[in-house]
Amino acid sequence: MAMTGVLRPGHAQIRVMDLEEGVHHYRDIMGLVETGRDAQGRVYLKCWDEMDHNSVVLRQADRAGIDFAGFKVLDKATLEKLDADLRAYGVKTERIPAGEMLETGERVRFQIATGHIIELYAEKTAVGNGCGLINPTPWSPDTMRGMAPIRLDHMLLYGPDIAAVQKLFTEVLGFTLVERILNPEGTGSIVVFLSCSIKSHDIAFGEYPEPGKLHHCSFLLDSWDHVLRAGDIMSMNNIRVDIGPTRHGVTRGCTIYAWDPSGNRFETFKEDRHPYPDHEALTWTFEGVGQGGGLDYVQRKLHETFLTVVS
Amino acid sequence: MAMTGVLRPGHAQIRVMDLEEGVHHYRDIMGLVETGRDAQGRVYLKCWDEMDHNSVVLRQADRAGIDFAGFKVLDKATLEKLDADLRAYGVKTERIPAGEMLETGERVRFQIATGHIIELYAEKTAVGNGCGLINPTPWSPDTMRGMAPIRLDHMLLYGPDIAAVQKLFTEVLGFTLVERILNPEGTGSIVVFLSCSIKSHDIAFGEYPEPGKLHHCSFLLDSWDHVLRAGDIMSMNNIRVDIGPTRHGVTRGCTIYAWDPSGNRFETFKEDRHPYPDHEALTWTFEGVGQGGGLDYVQRKLHETFLTVVS
Amino acid sequence: MAMTGVLRPGHAQIRVMDLEEGVHHYRDIMGLVETGRDAQGRVYLKCWDEMDHNSVVLRQADRAGIDFAGFKVLDKATLEKLDADLRAYGVKTERIPAGEMLETGERVRFQIATGHIIELYAEKTAVGNGCGLINPTPWSPDTMRGMAPIRLDHMLLYGPDIAAVQKLFTEVLGFTLVERILNPEGTGSIVVFLSCSIKSHDIAFGEYPEPGKLHHCSFLLDSWDHVLRAGDIMSMNNIRVDIGPTRHGVTRGCTIYAWDPSGNRFETFKEDRHPYPDHEALTWTFEGVGQGGGLDYVQRKLHETFLTVVS
Amino acid sequence: MAMTGVLRPGHAQIRVMDLEEGVHHYRDIMGLVETGRDAQGRVYLKCWDEMDHNSVVLRQADRAGIDFAGFKVLDKATLEKLDADLRAYGVKTERIPAGEMLETGERVRFQIATGHIIELYAEKTAVGNGCGLINPTPWSPDTMRGMAPIRLDHMLLYGPDIAAVQKLFTEVLGFTLVERILNPEGTGSIVVFLSCSIKSHDIAFGEYPEPGKLHHCSFLLDSWDHVLRAGDIMSMNNIRVDIGPTRHGVTRGCTIYAWDPSGNRFETFKEDRHPYPDHEALTWTFEGVGQGGGLDYVQRKLHETFLTVVS
Repeated sequence: MAMTGVLRPGHAQIRVMDLEEGVHHYRDIMGLVETGRDAQGRVYLKCWDEMDHNSVVLRQADRAGIDFAGFKVLDKATLEKLDADLRAYGVKTERIPAGEMLETGERVRFQIATGHIIELYAEKTAVGNGCGLINPTPWSPDTMRGMAPIRLDHMLLYGPDIAAVQKLFTEVLGFTLVERILNPEGTGSIVVFLSCSIKSHDIAFGEYPEPGKLHHCSFLLDSWDHVLRAGDIMSMNNIRVDIGPTRHGVTRGCTIYAWDPSGNRFETFKEDRHPYPDHEALTWTFEGVGQGGGLDYVQRKLHETFLTVVS
Repeated sequence: MAMTGVLRPGHAQIRVMDLEEGVHHYRDIMGLVETGRDAQGRVYLKCWDEMDHNSVVLRQADRAGIDFAGFKVLDKATLEKLDADLRAYGVKTERIPAGEMLETGERVRFQIATGHIIELYAEKTAVGNGCGLINPTPWSPDTMRGMAPIRLDHMLLYGPDIAAVQKLFTEVLGFTLVERILNPEGTGSIVVFLSCSIKSHDIAFGEYPEPGKLHHCSFLLDSWDHVLRAGDIMSMNNIRVDIGPTRHGVTRGCTIYAWDPSGNRFETFKEDRHPYPDHEALTWTFEGVGQGGGLDYVQRKLHETFLTVVS
Repeated sequence: MAMTGVLRPGHAQIRVMDLEEGVHHYRDIMGLVETGRDAQGRVYLKCWDEMDHNSVVLRQADRAGIDFAGFKVLDKATLEKLDADLRAYGVKTERIPAGEMLETGERVRFQIATGHIIELYAEKTAVGNGCGLINPTPWSPDTMRGMAPIRLDHMLLYGPDIAAVQKLFTEVLGFTLVERILNPEGTGSIVVFLSCSIKSHDIAFGEYPEPGKLHHCSFLLDSWDHVLRAGDIMSMNNIRVDIGPTRHGVTRGCTIYAWDPSGNRFETFKEDRHPYPDHEALTWTFEGVGQGGGLDYVQRKLHETFLTVVS
Repeated sequence: MAMTGVLRPGHAQIRVMDLEEGVHHYRDIMGLVETGRDAQGRVYLKCWDEMDHNSVVLRQADRAGIDFAGFKVLDKATLEKLDADLRAYGVKTERIPAGEMLETGERVRFQIATGHIIELYAEKTAVGNGCGLINPTPWSPDTMRGMAPIRLDHMLLYGPDIAAVQKLFTEVLGFTLVERILNPEGTGSIVVFLSCSIKSHDIAFGEYPEPGKLHHCSFLLDSWDHVLRAGDIMSMNNIRVDIGPTRHGVTRGCTIYAWDPSGNRFETFKEDRHPYPDHEALTWTFEGVGQGGGLDYVQRKLHETFLTVVS
């Protein structure tokens, strides 16, 4: 197989402080599809073009943030192999039984140096995108609501010791370093962008003293026009916007950063680069991320919230 | 690795009947970058955002068509393994020594049932996209000329026995069947779309009695606006247009099909789907490709040239 | 006043052969807003961003076509003056009393050489676009449905003696000739594009032996992306498409021509030129409208339906 | 005539502190076409799609700002009538002879309450847009450089007593009030947006204690994609950006504000509203311009520079 191992970020369990407010945000304003609720009260949603049952899971809690991020792997054999590889590498893993999340198979769970809980799984029920499998339509008016993101694209997680996490993701999980932002001294990375595909990032990590923090979950849009449309919808719904619309120099992607009602940052993102593992990684100096346009290519300034505000 | 084995279509050697006319077309009108000419007189070009030295190679000949299509693989070990796998599968392979093509390493060459020559290679000199590797620019005015395609995206090749070719590409080379068009009886496929990544196709094959034919080489554009811009440029340069601008139902992509001066069809294409190997393949009935909008989603008609005109 | 006299095409009464089928087409598929029905059974609709009560009026009849086209003028004094000017020019006018159309003031009606009924009026109740007048929103999700055209943009009407009509519109009604298509001999125009503003056309006329025919009503969209979206929606609803998506050379506008269920052609159109009355008119030769790209700039061909199919 | 009187802003004479630096900015980076230099050393430029000889005139001076803004009127009779109307209204006018500006006819010049010099003129040599007048191309690669604005769209001028200026422009020059921003007390306007066409503004005025100040000259782009492209080009050329890319709530237009090397603010602007004189004016409260999204619809914040930084 040419596309093997870890396929993509498949689910993220997000903590919201008021469940119905959170559902209103992700389902009614952003336009995700609610696909189920479980006995624990968790609400499951998916983006319209995702085939699998869920990608965003909301859990009511007394503080915002991310419980865990799950990656779908190619198949059960891959799951077993990666579990063995993780254990061989010295990572303690545990099994979450199939069905603990709705329509989701057994998960291999482990904690990484940044404090985040990461999961791998091979099975999640395909429910389709509403376009059919025979002579499919390109999109469906029924599933196009709100900002109508295409998929959960990636996450940026903040915590300590991202160097260890980069090593784990590249050496064990098969990710490639696509871009990185250096610390002011140029001696190490403060943000690393890692891909397991030809996306500019499937996951990214930022160095931060406190473990387990969520910088943002990113949702893919099809065009820069749709990024503005998302911005209009944010404004119409009094969503707090952090940065954008603008282009990131890093990844070249087009972006708006904003916050859900609980303070979890999310991104509406238009991809604009398709790196391959044989491409050399791109480097941003610390000055480059600000004045060099890495964060905000048009304005060439460092919005302080980028480095400091997480959930 | 999550992105392993065969990475992407890396080069296509295209026959043109007048070399300078062909160079004018691909370099000056389409906007590819000329990167070299070799002792045989072949002209090497690349799309602006491709990192490697070349992707389109033009050879003067007395008839149009494609000499061979090459796929870049992850590394030399992968090349050796795939060569062994091909031989084990019963495919006769030969080695083309490094340097036979400019800035390109050793190639493993073999012929497939449709009569096409396919190559695998692991090495091609990275020359970059003109944006730099440290604090890179998102694009470079110097490299943005003409239609300014981002990359050689895929090819559609016509020849006999695509079922055998599909089997080879999926069982040995790790490709996934993403979409297929059925014959009128529904008993088999007349076109298959195969991906080794999360592109809607890295290669496609159409059933055709004559072997080794080229239906089109496709070049990626960033947006539907750029597809129109490409169409304007075609018109300004009296390029013969076959179909479009429109949306394909198949792959959802936005397209114009047109011909180079030698009669090789090319496509300017905007991708709009990102399938994964765990997604079920989509099926188009024979009627679906015409009236069902598979070829021309807006017009829902079967342009006869699609099935009959090749080079 | 700088913008005086005739302001814009304000309403068109279209004949449909099945009223509810017509309403379904214009309201549910195209996305116009139904604003009323009158005692005669006529259905009134408007585009989302139009401020006045109606722009498209559907009347059930046993054949398709256009009953009349109405232009809004600046004010009642202008209406009186233009009526007097028309009479002085030798045009017989009649008055249709206020209220004969819903929410519409008195109309001055007259027939032109091409056989069409033209109306002028100064008053139509402003109902707004749903965005408010104080701190307005840029658009409203409630009013964005279907193809969501912004406004009735222009009409192309076919009939005999367009030279006389051009003279009337330019000499009496203050329109400017913006573009024209010459007959094969180059001795006269077969289509003239006339503007009373800085639009590339507010009305156009094509030479045709039969009087009073409708070539198309055109609806404005904001972008080329929206033109494709309209094309997708046409396809999803099995609307017969005539031409496009493509760019017209004439007016530079981006277009799809299609037919409503009764056979009235309509256009979804993206404007791309803003002529002024001091600009010299542009000329298209007869060959220019076909091979020169006047009709279909990308394909440079003359779709025969353009000259022959009307309602 | 339906489009009569004052047609559009036709020229602006801008002061730059280093002429060649200014020419580099407007010609090489923004992409205007240099059309001439006069004996005074002034440099004349036009946008690619403007037909007349010049729209931006650069004059070297020891401080930035605007010398005068000129409006093209329909014809010489209109010029005479407007001069007479101005004098009747109590405005002192003077005549600048034809030829004082290159390729420009006689100008009627007067000063308005805000301290700005305004001119009217009827004649400026048509040099065309490079697309031809017979079977024209929609655009020309030769004229598409840099940000490639379509036209000088409007200006926002700051000075005292905009109420008097609004009265003059609407009562004498035929402009319509399209939108206005109220002062905090709601007792008067602090910015007024005036149109002589169906543009959302041909000129705007902001209340400011110091007379004769330039807030910005605005240049029209065709799409939101082109606004981002302009932003990329600004970044590549280290142009200081003030606000954007974003949408203005006021006018709905899409925008980036930035500064030329002398500190004159300019805007790259995508129009998104087409008001008519019969439409009711839109009102923005003082809070509405900030938190209400009037200035920055996505971010809903008042960038202080909007009210305070002028040249």
